[in-house]
Amino acid sequence: MRERIQATIITIGDELLIGQVIDTNSAFIAQKLNAVGVGVQQRIAVGDDAKSITNALDTAIQESQIVILTGGLGPTADDITKPLLNRYFGGKMVVDQASLDHIKYIFEQIHKRPMIERNLKQAEVPDVCEVLFNQSGTAPGMLFKKNDSLIFSLPGVPFEMQWLMSEKVLPIILDRFKLGVIAHRTLLTAGVGESFLAEQILDFEKNLPENIKLAYLPSYGMVRLRLTGNSDDAVSLNHQLDALFEQLKENIKEYLVTDKDEPLEVIVGRLLKDQNQTVSTAESCTGGYIGHLLSKHAGSSTFFTGSIVSYDNRIKTEFLDVPVRILKTVGAVSKEAVEQMAIAIRAKMNTDYGISVSGIMGPSGQTDEKPLGMVWIGVSNKEKVVSKVFYLRFDRQKNIEVTANQAINLLRLLIINKI
Amino acid sequence: MRERIQATIITIGDELLIGQVIDTNSAFIAQKLNAVGVGVQQRIAVGDDAKSITNALDTAIQESQIVILTGGLGPTADDITKPLLNRYFGGKMVVDQASLDHIKYIFEQIHKRPMIERNLKQAEVPDVCEVLFNQSGTAPGMLFKKNDSLIFSLPGVPFEMQWLMSEKVLPIILDRFKLGVIAHRTLLTAGVGESFLAEQILDFEKNLPENIKLAYLPSYGMVRLRLTGNSDDAVSLNHQLDALFEQLKENIKEYLVTDKDEPLEVIVGRLLKDQNQTVSTAESCTGGYIGHLLSKHAGSSTFFTGSIVSYDNRIKTEFLDVPVRILKTVGAVSKEAVEQMAIAIRAKMNTDYGISVSGIMGPSGQTDEKPLGMVWIGVSNKEKVVSKVFYLRFDRQKNIEVTANQAINLLRLLIINKI
Repeated sequence: MRERIQATIITIGDELLIGQVIDTNSAFIAQKLNAVGVGVQQRIAVGDDAKSITNALDTAIQESQIVILTGGLGPTADDITKPLLNRYFGGKMVVDQASLDHIKYIFEQIHKRPMIERNLKQAEVPDVCEVLFNQSGTAPGMLFKKNDSLIFSLPGVPFEMQWLMSEKVLPIILDRFKLGVIAHRTLLTAGVGESFLAEQILDFEKNLPENIKLAYLPSYGMVRLRLTGNSDDAVSLNHQLDALFEQLKENIKEYLVTDKDEPLEVIVGRLLKDQNQTVSTAESCTGGYIGHLLSKHAGSSTFFTGSIVSYDNRIKTEFLDVPVRILKTVGAVSKEAVEQMAIAIRAKMNTDYGISVSGIMGPSGQTDEKPLGMVWIGVSNKEKVVSKVFYLRFDRQKNIEVTANQAINLLRLLIINKI
Repeated sequence: MRERIQATIITIGDELLIGQVIDTNSAFIAQKLNAVGVGVQQRIAVGDDAKSITNALDTAIQESQIVILTGGLGPTADDITKPLLNRYFGGKMVVDQASLDHIKYIFEQIHKRPMIERNLKQAEVPDVCEVLFNQSGTAPGMLFKKNDSLIFSLPGVPFEMQWLMSEKVLPIILDRFKLGVIAHRTLLTAGVGESFLAEQILDFEKNLPENIKLAYLPSYGMVRLRLTGNSDDAVSLNHQLDALFEQLKENIKEYLVTDKDEPLEVIVGRLLKDQNQTVSTAESCTGGYIGHLLSKHAGSSTFFTGSIVSYDNRIKTEFLDVPVRILKTVGAVSKEAVEQMAIAIRAKMNTDYGISVSGIMGPSGQTDEKPLGMVWIGVSNKEKVVSKVFYLRFDRQKNIEVTANQAINLLRLLIINKI
């Protein structure tokens, strides 16, 4: 019988409690744990404060077989985690020679800067821990054991934490526990609200077996649906999930965008790559964000050619041939303007597809005819240009993100001949 | 004597525990609470699971006078929070007429779609709560009281949560508690590592009074320093912080970028606005991200004109006049290429300043001479063009973000005549 292993993630740092920093480490750790069949029971964020860290550790060790701490291991005085762990587990500090050599190497060979006392301090560890050598940085990871729980302490620098999770922590967990299996199936819908979707799959949801859960996740003006199952056996769980996922897809097929858990721009990138085709963008209100999304994943140079960001109307006329007449009569946020932009960018950058957007992202700029959040999106190929208007009601940042995603979705519909 | 009030934030949703969604709500809530003098003791994220939510509530009510829950109030079956709170606080469900009227209004007047049973359900609330009318959406907020603690339950949709926090929750907290004061001073440094900075301000840090803490926060290849103080009295605390902040700035003055807690692009945007000047960008490896940063804040149209994203080398030649000879000899990631790009974009978009970048963001594309993470950045004005090479060692996404920030910082140095 496989064990049902639960983990608690503890992130340490005052910056998390005053809201100055958004915690992305927890999401990464949770994903990695889930992928090997460890459930995350809870995540706790505490400040650089001995009592809070101790309380969180007490709770976590009592409830979970795996505890992962991040943060608080830097070279500065606000980082109190290491001496605290030393006391908590009753050890004394000793120098770890491998870590010391590595720190010296980093400073002498990479930074080419002299090292100071507090850098050397990073090589000190409690003698009651197993050192997890950190090839990606100066702060070693540590593994403690208590009451059958494994307690991992990792630095908070994301890429150091990520390296240690993948190379050290997961192999130890897989070696120590016989793990059950957790698996997910995720699909993305567009053009339908959460409540209507729920109504559509009422019976499906009601009849789900005990070990399968359904979740609704809003995603840039669209809705993701996720099935999560757990079991002792990977093969039977995957069969079960595949069958249910087919039913679910059948139920919502008219709204289905993709049945893969990938960002929209990756899906559209693959469509373009498969057909050896290219795209360019003419952006106004998104300021370059669509180009950023299309190029943020590796391998995008095969399909993304470039963009003209015409934030100023003068650039729309000079670079994208939008007639001054259009700007003066119907304005830059209009069907006429985005259709001309979509046609022009495709022609000028010599790509198979063009995307264009122009809108009012807020918090000001609206008129009587053009409310805040109004945005026109255009897409073009060699046969046609199609445009659509959206009325968004988020804040500026979110309006930009939703616009970019809706624009990429409109391109997807054009590529697959649905518009 | 002012009260030292502590809050616990509980975020609910399986998506937080499988790492599918990054929790930005907690950061917003923490910021708002801090601003009125409420300290956040801890943040707990739990799944859509009755036992976990109940445990988190027990702990939170025991330790904090204020508990804020978000999430789990949607119209779908995976949202179990409302019936759970009803049982937890011993109430029975009743219809809230104001919320019902508002839901009907939203569907009839805004969505122009028929309403279904589960939408109406959102107007039901436990009779033991005070309803917090939600003008921004369909799920009302709720306030419960237990053992002198206030327990607020808010929807997880960010802009609904944000509206309720600002308009309902904070006024109730300010009315109920006599709050102490928490205040921060934050500055940004560039060109120096965390350990060296710590060495530089060793004495300053050692002599800080009990009520003031110093924190080091990495920020896109730069370091932020933050002083946090708490006190009963705002006037004396601000005097104390101002004096210490002046000392701190004096200690690190050669590395100081700004003494305001604002993103770099806002600071540079203000410099440009104050001088009535404009900027345009020629981006390769950042794919439009610099344009996005410059335009993501309201009011950017006064100084940001536009961008040419030349992801494909052909666009560098056709739109930015980078000679094929340069691309063939020294390549696109070179001093020669970015300097030409910075000069060309400024001339073509007729702006006061130009920014250009070209680099190898990973995970592949490196050569023997040009390692992964190598990036050239150029900035230009009418007198000169300046370029600088960076060697970054993050992942692709982080390399893009750091490049964009370093480019904006280089523009800042040019504007203030430091390069």
